Amino acid sequence: MAAIEEPAFTWPVRVYYEDTDCGNVVYYANYLRFMERARTEWLRANGIEQDAVRNELKLLFVVVSSNVRYIQPARFNDELFVTVDQVQPRRASVNFEQRVCRGNTVLCQGSIRAASVNAQTLKPIPLPARLLEAIRQ
Amino acid sequence: MAAIEEPAFTWPVRVYYEDTDCGNVVYYANYLRFMERARTEWLRANGIEQDAVRNELKLLFVVVSSNVRYIQPARFNDELFVTVDQVQPRRASVNFEQRVCRGNTVLCQGSIRAASVNAQTLKPIPLPARLLEAIRQ
Amino acid sequence: MAAIEEPAFTWPVRVYYEDTDCGNVVYYANYLRFMERARTEWLRANGIEQDAVRNELKLLFVVVSSNVRYIQPARFNDELFVTVDQVQPRRASVNFEQRVCRGNTVLCQGSIRAASVNAQTLKPIPLPARLLEAIRQ
Amino acid sequence: MAAIEEPAFTWPVRVYYEDTDCGNVVYYANYLRFMERARTEWLRANGIEQDAVRNELKLLFVVVSSNVRYIQPARFNDELFVTVDQVQPRRASVNFEQRVCRGNTVLCQGSIRAASVNAQTLKPIPLPARLLEAIRQ
Repeated sequence: MAAIEEPAFTWPVRVYYEDTDCGNVVYYANYLRFMERARTEWLRANGIEQDAVRNELKLLFVVVSSNVRYIQPARFNDELFVTVDQVQPRRASVNFEQRVCRGNTVLCQGSIRAASVNAQTLKPIPLPARLLEAIRQ
Repeated sequence: MAAIEEPAFTWPVRVYYEDTDCGNVVYYANYLRFMERARTEWLRANGIEQDAVRNELKLLFVVVSSNVRYIQPARFNDELFVTVDQVQPRRASVNFEQRVCRGNTVLCQGSIRAASVNAQTLKPIPLPARLLEAIRQ
Repeated sequence: MAAIEEPAFTWPVRVYYEDTDCGNVVYYANYLRFMERARTEWLRANGIEQDAVRNELKLLFVVVSSNVRYIQPARFNDELFVTVDQVQPRRASVNFEQRVCRGNTVLCQGSIRAASVNAQTLKPIPLPARLLEAIRQ
Repeated sequence: MAAIEEPAFTWPVRVYYEDTDCGNVVYYANYLRFMERARTEWLRANGIEQDAVRNELKLLFVVVSSNVRYIQPARFNDELFVTVDQVQPRRASVNFEQRVCRGNTVLCQGSIRAASVNAQTLKPIPLPARLLEAIRQ
């Protein structure tokens, strides 16, 4: 399980009441929030601040597909970590492989594709060289 | 309890999993969402579409205070209704008295004040005559 | 586009401020909420109330996978409808094909699989005959 | 402004897309989530884990009132901190004074009262000596 032990990037997430539902587990859509927090922090760790990118390059990342498997439930008060792996930039989008884990247990696994679009028109625009470089490093 | 039986405006809300938490009740912050849905629909019923107001008048409503009492819990699958009462426009804000009810039971009660601000600067702007009239009718 | 014009079931959803983000569109994870509202109402329309199912059969539905394509953005104030199609029960799970639409435009498309699990242990349990029948009708 | 510079407890919160709305600011109800995260961490810092309290004492904290002023907007990517001050235990409830700040600026200010209730019946129960002590220290 090398992938879990040595992910490219991990971000901690604590489960609060707001994240759970009356099934006594984390509400399924909220794993997508956790994954986005980790992608945001991965971008930041690579020198990409999304508000600057938006102001300076008129560029916004929008998720165009998410394929997620919910394997085991997370619960209130759990200390989770979210991984970002195998980040693959294409011409106008980026693929991320992500996991939400508790210790050595993978609770949730997702492939997320985010497109780079014009902040006003939301039309696809190619990833600028500056971002491509930051993502590839 | 005439106020519950004859509110100025009511809007139905069904409780879904997304609204609940692992305490097996509706998460407290979500009552504020329910109240906003009702205010939005009350504005709509009075001819005010907030996207049009924003585009045409560069005006946005932002909540500046909320005083809420959570009296009894709502639960998954409950059919609630939210009331809008005693709407009081001031120069650059509007006060709403609101309740979230299940049948004759008031579950939650709130006083909400929304300010009218410039959509860009978020600085207060006086309510235009057209809105004042719509609100007062 | 017969599938959009004649879906098995549709449920209306209005977009409120709570559903949007600062990209000026509906936040991607919130489409999963909209889809669940429609599944809940589809179940209800087929005589299945999930709180009764939980109390009487100790059965909970939990989403085990969601494959979603976000095709076009929904925006504040949009009137959307969510479809439920091709509901396929298996031994201990149900597959749903779903769309979120605005008029004739499909904004978002998803395949959702919900497992039937014991409400306490969260272990898979076969769909009881009563539910199978209701789902198949 | 000694109160801001020396609050009893502070907890950092980063603003993600999920927290914002199309007004380009943090959605007003989400400040209540931020405040709860800080209360949860304050309890934890005082040795109170809410899942343990629930299992061992059958006790749940539920918010019974929230009086909040939204003074200035927080925005995407902001680094905020949330304070917990003047924690006042009563017989079966606790009052918290809280602020959400960015640097030296108070964005949001709230008085929150949480009642201690039986986890099953949701009826008020007196704060056990063990909790009272932990809260008072």
